[in-house]
Amino acid sequence: MITLDLTLPDTRYPIHIGQQLLGRADLLLPHIKHKKVALISNTTVAPLYLANLRQALENQGINVIPIVLPDGEDFKTWETLNQIFDALLQHRCERNTTLIALGGGVIGDMVGFAAACYQRGAPFIQIPTTLLAQVDSSVGGKTAINHPLGKNMIGVFYQPRVVVADMDLLDSLPERELSAGLAEVIKYGLLGNLAFLGWLEQNMEALRAKDKQALSYAVQTSCAMKADIVSQDEKEHGVRALLNLGHTFGHAIEAGLGFGTWLHGEAVGAGMLLAAETSRLLGNLSEADVQRVKAILEQAGLPTISPDLGVATWLELMSHDKKVSDGEIRFVLLQTLGQAQVATVPQDVLQQVLTGRFISKA
Amino acid sequence: MITLDLTLPDTRYPIHIGQQLLGRADLLLPHIKHKKVALISNTTVAPLYLANLRQALENQGINVIPIVLPDGEDFKTWETLNQIFDALLQHRCERNTTLIALGGGVIGDMVGFAAACYQRGAPFIQIPTTLLAQVDSSVGGKTAINHPLGKNMIGVFYQPRVVVADMDLLDSLPERELSAGLAEVIKYGLLGNLAFLGWLEQNMEALRAKDKQALSYAVQTSCAMKADIVSQDEKEHGVRALLNLGHTFGHAIEAGLGFGTWLHGEAVGAGMLLAAETSRLLGNLSEADVQRVKAILEQAGLPTISPDLGVATWLELMSHDKKVSDGEIRFVLLQTLGQAQVATVPQDVLQQVLTGRFISKA
Repeated sequence: MITLDLTLPDTRYPIHIGQQLLGRADLLLPHIKHKKVALISNTTVAPLYLANLRQALENQGINVIPIVLPDGEDFKTWETLNQIFDALLQHRCERNTTLIALGGGVIGDMVGFAAACYQRGAPFIQIPTTLLAQVDSSVGGKTAINHPLGKNMIGVFYQPRVVVADMDLLDSLPERELSAGLAEVIKYGLLGNLAFLGWLEQNMEALRAKDKQALSYAVQTSCAMKADIVSQDEKEHGVRALLNLGHTFGHAIEAGLGFGTWLHGEAVGAGMLLAAETSRLLGNLSEADVQRVKAILEQAGLPTISPDLGVATWLELMSHDKKVSDGEIRFVLLQTLGQAQVATVPQDVLQQVLTGRFISKA
Repeated sequence: MITLDLTLPDTRYPIHIGQQLLGRADLLLPHIKHKKVALISNTTVAPLYLANLRQALENQGINVIPIVLPDGEDFKTWETLNQIFDALLQHRCERNTTLIALGGGVIGDMVGFAAACYQRGAPFIQIPTTLLAQVDSSVGGKTAINHPLGKNMIGVFYQPRVVVADMDLLDSLPERELSAGLAEVIKYGLLGNLAFLGWLEQNMEALRAKDKQALSYAVQTSCAMKADIVSQDEKEHGVRALLNLGHTFGHAIEAGLGFGTWLHGEAVGAGMLLAAETSRLLGNLSEADVQRVKAILEQAGLPTISPDLGVATWLELMSHDKKVSDGEIRFVLLQTLGQAQVATVPQDVLQQVLTGRFISKA
């Protein structure tokens, strides 16, 4: 196990990465104030891992209240969030009761938001069970639910007390979800670490075969980069926006097709290629760079052709992006491969990208 | 106009108190980043004041989006909150769009919560239009909505950029609501300022006649005390809990009768008398002290007899209080008149209070 440390102005917390960590109550106990936790998971993950974790905590004399939610991005709504509040109140959970998120990004985002709002702030713990959640959403304190007009529109910044990323939990991860997680891993290479991109190109086969050593290295590298960026800019006033590479296009794909049609990671992957193509048209990337982005996405088993939403719909959906400022959509683009920047894009270039070679021809 | 300053670890903001402030766009402009604001009010307040404020802002070239919500504590729900989010997204409000709360405590709490959650945090301004909101809810950053199982159960701490308390807006305040606000004013005297309690006893008639000088002094004194306490303990880990004098009983009255049946201030007033009676039974207050509390509430036109919810229902409702810790209800009681403390109460004493002389006999 290795432990990274995320230090912020008001708090700091450990991110434990390794194997056989799910039964390790000792990693959680220092962060549980009262002898009561709400253990929140979904119908897919709960049958696999909830009983183990529950037993480990109950062995330490902790009262565990399990809350099992429906699975999927289309349940990342107020209605599901309210199921958490209902259960917490029915079980008389207090504002010092710790909430544990056991699941992927949707569970992590919702439990974090629920913890932030329950009695104005209960402690919470992230135990991510997907690669995507391990490398991205469980770290950094972004919590949210979706709104029909935009993804993650309703949420707050709220940090967990500890993150435990157990590679063993990825054994049960479907191939498609593994690929989706790899999109966010690739993102870190593209936006700030060209050497890591090279490592990924060399090790993609091992990653897709769930080689634990390779996965662990990929998660560590990703989390270390994320922790570094978040510690500089917790609330995304500046550099943190770079972590949104591929997300402006990606969120539009998710919302345009209906949340849950494409996985978040798939949409981000295709979105990163659109961002790369945009960067090429602006003169910053070469054709070879764009092909390299396309190739690594294909290696990861990710789609590279985005759906044809129609330019008007693309623009409408992207106009709800949280980076919009004074009415202008701001994109995370590539200055060079391995270095991202935030920029606006001229209308004609956008038009070209959104009708171009990486958009599906009906 | 006088200006108080609330200083917190991460932020500070002014609280302007005086007359003829609603048209003073100059008080708001330094806190509006973009030339766009969402001006959120309710069906009662909007016809009285929205147009004036809107005009004052539009004269400064600001694009004002009015959002008018239904009025009342029973609308302090997720459904109403979602009306705000819908409107913000439909009008393409950005995360730098300022939300202005123009209304009483319900509007202030909901707009604050909406601002905290909209795109993970938009700036907001409080313009309280009731005495209760001016002396209590608009200052200190507590935001929330109600849950059927408990008042203000879902919310966050989120501070406004500026608070503008204009005494002129109280001209339209119904007598019953003025009295409800006076309950929170009396609270400051009881919990920490005996001299102020004496002043209130002398000046209650002027306050109820809406004498602007008297109101302004009461609001200043209340806000100064609140600002002092909040600056010591923003997130209620300690001393801030004292501001909850009367609220554990009061919230139970509100929830037990259905939100909106008693006004919040009425419930807090009656709850303070129950807290005083509890304090007497514990040997801390004299009978004369309790009578003095009862008398000032009566002077303010407030009810002093609480509804008979039944002991079991009282306990059930109070067990959801946010101050509950390790299953024990913690009350704010009076150590002496003018000094509050947090304490637990033996079951037999609680039983006696909840069936005693300040509970309605059917």
